[in-house]
Amino acid sequence: MTDTLEQTSTARSDIESWLGRLDAACRAGDAQGAAALFTEDSFWRDLIAFTWNLKTCEGRDEIAAMLSATLSSTQPTGWKVTDGEEPTSAEGVTEAWIEFETAVGRGRGQLRLKADDTGEQKAWTLLTTLYELTGFEEPQRSARPKGAEHGANKSRESWTEKREREARELGYETQPYVLIVGGGQGGIALGARLRQLGVPTIVVDKRARPGDQWRSRYKSLCLHDPVWYDHLPYIKFPDNWPVFAPKDKIADWLESYAKIMELNYWTNTEAKSASWDEARAEWTVTVERDGQPVVLKPKQLVLATGMSGKPNLPDFPGMDVFTGDQHHSSAHPGPDAYAGKKCVVVGSNNSAFDICGALWENGADVTMVQRSSTHIVRSDSLMEIGLGDLYSEEAVAAGMTTEKADLTFASLPYRIMHLFQIPAYEAMAERDKDFYDRLEKSGFEHDWGDDGSGLFMKYLRRGSGYYIDVGAADLVANGDVKLVKGQVDHLTEKSVVLEDGTELEADLVVYATGYGSMNGWVADLISPEAADKVGKVWGLGSDTTKDPGPWEGEQRNMWKPTQVEALWMHGGNLHQSRHYSLYLALQLKARAEGIPTPVYGLQEVHHTS
Amino acid sequence: MTDTLEQTSTARSDIESWLGRLDAACRAGDAQGAAALFTEDSFWRDLIAFTWNLKTCEGRDEIAAMLSATLSSTQPTGWKVTDGEEPTSAEGVTEAWIEFETAVGRGRGQLRLKADDTGEQKAWTLLTTLYELTGFEEPQRSARPKGAEHGANKSRESWTEKREREARELGYETQPYVLIVGGGQGGIALGARLRQLGVPTIVVDKRARPGDQWRSRYKSLCLHDPVWYDHLPYIKFPDNWPVFAPKDKIADWLESYAKIMELNYWTNTEAKSASWDEARAEWTVTVERDGQPVVLKPKQLVLATGMSGKPNLPDFPGMDVFTGDQHHSSAHPGPDAYAGKKCVVVGSNNSAFDICGALWENGADVTMVQRSSTHIVRSDSLMEIGLGDLYSEEAVAAGMTTEKADLTFASLPYRIMHLFQIPAYEAMAERDKDFYDRLEKSGFEHDWGDDGSGLFMKYLRRGSGYYIDVGAADLVANGDVKLVKGQVDHLTEKSVVLEDGTELEADLVVYATGYGSMNGWVADLISPEAADKVGKVWGLGSDTTKDPGPWEGEQRNMWKPTQVEALWMHGGNLHQSRHYSLYLALQLKARAEGIPTPVYGLQEVHHTS
Repeated sequence: MTDTLEQTSTARSDIESWLGRLDAACRAGDAQGAAALFTEDSFWRDLIAFTWNLKTCEGRDEIAAMLSATLSSTQPTGWKVTDGEEPTSAEGVTEAWIEFETAVGRGRGQLRLKADDTGEQKAWTLLTTLYELTGFEEPQRSARPKGAEHGANKSRESWTEKREREARELGYETQPYVLIVGGGQGGIALGARLRQLGVPTIVVDKRARPGDQWRSRYKSLCLHDPVWYDHLPYIKFPDNWPVFAPKDKIADWLESYAKIMELNYWTNTEAKSASWDEARAEWTVTVERDGQPVVLKPKQLVLATGMSGKPNLPDFPGMDVFTGDQHHSSAHPGPDAYAGKKCVVVGSNNSAFDICGALWENGADVTMVQRSSTHIVRSDSLMEIGLGDLYSEEAVAAGMTTEKADLTFASLPYRIMHLFQIPAYEAMAERDKDFYDRLEKSGFEHDWGDDGSGLFMKYLRRGSGYYIDVGAADLVANGDVKLVKGQVDHLTEKSVVLEDGTELEADLVVYATGYGSMNGWVADLISPEAADKVGKVWGLGSDTTKDPGPWEGEQRNMWKPTQVEALWMHGGNLHQSRHYSLYLALQLKARAEGIPTPVYGLQEVHHTS
Repeated sequence: MTDTLEQTSTARSDIESWLGRLDAACRAGDAQGAAALFTEDSFWRDLIAFTWNLKTCEGRDEIAAMLSATLSSTQPTGWKVTDGEEPTSAEGVTEAWIEFETAVGRGRGQLRLKADDTGEQKAWTLLTTLYELTGFEEPQRSARPKGAEHGANKSRESWTEKREREARELGYETQPYVLIVGGGQGGIALGARLRQLGVPTIVVDKRARPGDQWRSRYKSLCLHDPVWYDHLPYIKFPDNWPVFAPKDKIADWLESYAKIMELNYWTNTEAKSASWDEARAEWTVTVERDGQPVVLKPKQLVLATGMSGKPNLPDFPGMDVFTGDQHHSSAHPGPDAYAGKKCVVVGSNNSAFDICGALWENGADVTMVQRSSTHIVRSDSLMEIGLGDLYSEEAVAAGMTTEKADLTFASLPYRIMHLFQIPAYEAMAERDKDFYDRLEKSGFEHDWGDDGSGLFMKYLRRGSGYYIDVGAADLVANGDVKLVKGQVDHLTEKSVVLEDGTELEADLVVYATGYGSMNGWVADLISPEAADKVGKVWGLGSDTTKDPGPWEGEQRNMWKPTQVEALWMHGGNLHQSRHYSLYLALQLKARAEGIPTPVYGLQEVHHTS
């Protein structure tokens, strides 16, 4: 007990002393002095507080350069340990939740200290995030709207009348400041935040109802991430929500959420073209709403069309003569029409497994064509070993709120993230050894990522190459779903022929061949030139398979300024849509209010797709 | 600091010592001994834990009698102070949150001790509530459903298929255990709890959409209770929710909630008749769903048709010759058609003021006919002085969760509740003195309740006789809305004539003349005999205006067994719908599972309407 108290007290004084030194250096405008407070191998990750960018500075030189450029505009002050969060020490690292203010807003972050060679406590990792703009706080809690307008007022406009007027006028008589193309979880979460920040916004989606992005998929689909990881901003899933929500249930939630959060959500609306008007500094976007063209003039354009980008439909010889059904996995209608049919699924990642499993359950004869190695983890193992500390019922019970979990996750620099991931996947390999043995015996080509860092790094680096096993892997392992390996050479009228001459009879061919980079949407909507100017979206520049270098330090182009003015990319899983929508919303709000947003370290473009 | 620590420690030991003595007496089956642990002026309020009833025992004799009858079946054990809730002492009263178990479930409650003449700490008030049936816990948190069914399964039924099958079969091929008539906040909250408890339930409502109970009312209506008081079970309103939600916003919430909580909610469905089949111990209820008759056979029937009961439409001579519009306030369409028209509103309570205000805002010439004295409090004052300690942003910040607030509220015995209310209303009279002076100067007849206990007691006793002022009172005070006092004698073709001969020209007459007792619905649905057997609903038997004695100790017939088998009354404001739906749901669940539910102290019927 006494030991713990002493440790706590030392931890606090170490943190406070360090914050005091940082504060002094910042006030003195001494970027070099501030950088000297960091270890050689340090990281400062900033989410818009200093850089108006998502930016990780690696080592003292990058930190000094960043501070030189940003200190005078940021004017950070008030560094302190967050009330009620006691700093902790373990294994030589002292950790604390911190708060600070800038010239324009309020920030929070996380600091990890460790001793350098001389024994001095220096910062190893620092996360700084802006969560609120001063003077533009969200109307919450004690600042929530009153709702009723008391008193007597002959020109009273009721809530409904106001909402109806806004819905009627926005996009016609008045223009949105932000247009979000794509109304899945990403567009909805961002739309909700912008509504709270009072930024006039329209979300357009080509589908008939919010949630149809999920409803339209195969019937057995459930979320592969657990509930604790999936909350939207503002309204948490209730305590009775399933761990892995069925697709139609999450769809209903999104639809209700969009309504409750009062989004201006245009259904049956497709964005057809967009161009930037340099003189007026605004977009001209033509959308087709219920079949009628509407021209919108937003100042900011957000693509939230899915981090997966456009479907990669292969171009195999003979696709034109094949007489059966064939489609990309994203267009697969589900298994109902294929009982008793011969089905060939080209690919061996998530979609391929899910579709193979559903087809087999429906009595189809199913063959999976594995073209390259795939990483598989079992859902239960991933949940317990991969996410349990931050996103689980136990984490919640231990005081790990969703917000703290998100920041903890964000505090780990991408450069070293794989080092923390590798042991988790080693543990999974150990735990599920029998499973992997069976899988390999079936001939399935399995990998753990280029460096053994497993699923989450694959997700961040390339967004593909894995399957979270919810049951279909065993069908391959035991031969219920037939496995062949190789490349497709061509199709005939009735079959798929591989390069080694293997011929697979087929009534159905599903191309589970993945997706392109999100800037494919830019090419369609704006121009190929604009797409090239934005460059590749997603990935870290890790120089691993499908994620070419050079090193970026952050996910390419996501949630931050791009090389194309006033064009933003938003998306990712529910966790990312929730967390990063905050920073994107604040970047947009600051611009809407004319708050200076000098961007430090705007990313360069190294790849166009 | 030391003082506080010592006080806390004494408080805890006093509570634990008392609980130990109660436990010993209960284990020994010693009802007299247990009752002797209470003060002369004590109260034990039990919500279904001991009595399977909502029952307040007043004084030792009633407590001893209750325990004699219930100890052997209840078998209470494990009395303890709730973890993390330190007992407190103030002004001679020591207070604690407690927990216990019974033969069939888990309970929580609140205990207040004070010293008797000899200085011994005895119980002054004890609240015991059952919140969970052992073996039938709700699937929440770590017990939440998994959602996805992992593995491969050829007869897999997806979540949607299961929901669709249930919706298709329930009421036709399978029968609900519970039928709830009325789908407002009461029916919805109860339906949600029963769904979580796995009790097959149908909610029927005659309107087209959940929430239409609110949507159909006049356009400026907002909740008169603040957000902290209004949460539904399971999903709280978000932090940005308005203090006083506009009617259409709360309607949208209820509609989304009913969907998200997966209620079997039949819209466009009117309950036409019901009869009890003694032999089969079930109801035969004919409902008309989308115009088609459906016969349902529920074991339990809940009327959640509104605590207000059926509209009281007066029977004034001349109503048949009056040529203008006339309707009960509940059927008032809003002011839109009445700009420039002469409008007479008969009545001076909530509906009358709301309607007068909206008509005046819309440019009508409005006269209010006050027939009897009304109690008015200003909304802001009510919120701060009346509710602030339990239901406010400050209360939330101080750790007063909704659940704790509800139990604190429930812990105060009805018999003495007015004593705690009187000072609050005295403070309001003081605070708003100018307002009341102006109001009286206008001739308005104002009261504070028979004993000065104000609005909430009027609500509990008679459910009428007050107005929460959101602005319209000033219209009366300053003469914008004309005020006349007296009784209506008759109507002519074009006017309303009072007993004193005053003639009021009218294009519109609104009868804001209140509602009958809820058992009026029983008469319509089942039979007049059944209505008389149930007796008057609502009220405490306080022997004050419109709440005749004898004293009941609880609200008549609400949320507890009635004299008609398997017939239940549910409703009230959002707070009551939330809190009491728990006890009603557990009473129904216990019966569904065949758990013995011996009812102690079934209320007698003293009034038939």
